[in-house]
Amino acid sequence: MALIGVLGGMGPLATVDFMHRVIRLTRARCDQDHLPMLVANLTRMPDRSRAITDGDTDPLPALLDGIDLLNRSGVDLIAIPCNTAHHWYAPLRARSAAPILHIVDTAVAALPAGVRRVAVLATGGTLASGLYQSALRARGIEPVMPGATAQRDIAACIAAVKAGRVDAAGRQLSRALATLVRRDVDVAVMGCTEIPIAAHALGDAPLALVDTTHELARATVAYAAERGWARAV
Amino acid sequence: MALIGVLGGMGPLATVDFMHRVIRLTRARCDQDHLPMLVANLTRMPDRSRAITDGDTDPLPALLDGIDLLNRSGVDLIAIPCNTAHHWYAPLRARSAAPILHIVDTAVAALPAGVRRVAVLATGGTLASGLYQSALRARGIEPVMPGATAQRDIAACIAAVKAGRVDAAGRQLSRALATLVRRDVDVAVMGCTEIPIAAHALGDAPLALVDTTHELARATVAYAAERGWARAV
Repeated sequence: MALIGVLGGMGPLATVDFMHRVIRLTRARCDQDHLPMLVANLTRMPDRSRAITDGDTDPLPALLDGIDLLNRSGVDLIAIPCNTAHHWYAPLRARSAAPILHIVDTAVAALPAGVRRVAVLATGGTLASGLYQSALRARGIEPVMPGATAQRDIAACIAAVKAGRVDAAGRQLSRALATLVRRDVDVAVMGCTEIPIAAHALGDAPLALVDTTHELARATVAYAAERGWARAV
Repeated sequence: MALIGVLGGMGPLATVDFMHRVIRLTRARCDQDHLPMLVANLTRMPDRSRAITDGDTDPLPALLDGIDLLNRSGVDLIAIPCNTAHHWYAPLRARSAAPILHIVDTAVAALPAGVRRVAVLATGGTLASGLYQSALRARGIEPVMPGATAQRDIAACIAAVKAGRVDAAGRQLSRALATLVRRDVDVAVMGCTEIPIAAHALGDAPLALVDTTHELARATVAYAAERGWARAV
């Protein structure tokens, strides 16, 4: 029986959002049509962003423990609904018997053709890692980093979702987008899985948004559908 | 590190709903304040209700496999957000090193004092198992079973949620409640974890509802809070 492994809890609402999207993207008439998932919602993982920006506790050992846990239970594929954790993608992939989808690849692949300038909404750690900058430049797209004020709003938005204050997060995201829309960007990538949760509270956004949680879920269901484990909607 | 095991996938939206409520019921300022969970979203589990009512494939071996998987990964407590699966509670509990909360106990404990007649909204399998009837009678409460027409609406409501048709499920639940409200019941127990998802789509209900997903989540967080694993809101 195929089993999708999810290394989650970073944060927990983003993990639930990811699972919800996998379910919604699967064509199902009954429970048994849905994809089996083993979800390690490992909330006690050391903060990924602060490890990169401030040299705080390295989360790699705990991330590897999570990968081991999933592999011991025989998962066939792993998805990690946390962008910042992909700073450690190479060692996680090297450790895992099961393939691991790369959230940045799925997000960049979802950008419409012809976009020139893409804003990156992400944690300070993801920005410092350069994950999006290199993936965008490899496609000839110019990454646009938020200014200091917008970045403070984005960081506050992410923290608010992790603390369950989703309405406040929506307002902080709204402020950041109002600044970015003046910088001649075609699209903003929500390069942190907390941000789409804030975007749900936002209503209409002033610019096109790429949702990394959705793209990772879509890639997960597509991978499963190609192997006959489930059908995509 | 404490780890909450969830034997889920029955169905998957109910599992996501349960996780969401555990998160919302936990007092948290950051990821690390949230409860770690290992969620076995085992959607391919044979249909529990049809096993009871029609003698279809016995799900007990697969349920035991799920319990074993969670115990092998060292969970400290197990919650099963599926009422019908509790027909097999005794053998699951006998197999598990980790204690298992009983959803029917948590639901019946949540009934307000003084209620006399309680309607049971559940799968045909849960009704046939007598789980709620015996738990209610043990508290001196008269269980009220839906009539054949209302039960057809409830079964259709549950099936619609499992197929992702939540709005249709809300309409079917609404019809069932309109019938039950004429039968002098004080409260209806939503004794199937798909039904609260339909109830979200319903708006105001014509009678008081006890939500078994919510009560199981509350019991999970309370158990964790008593042991210092997390704080309840």
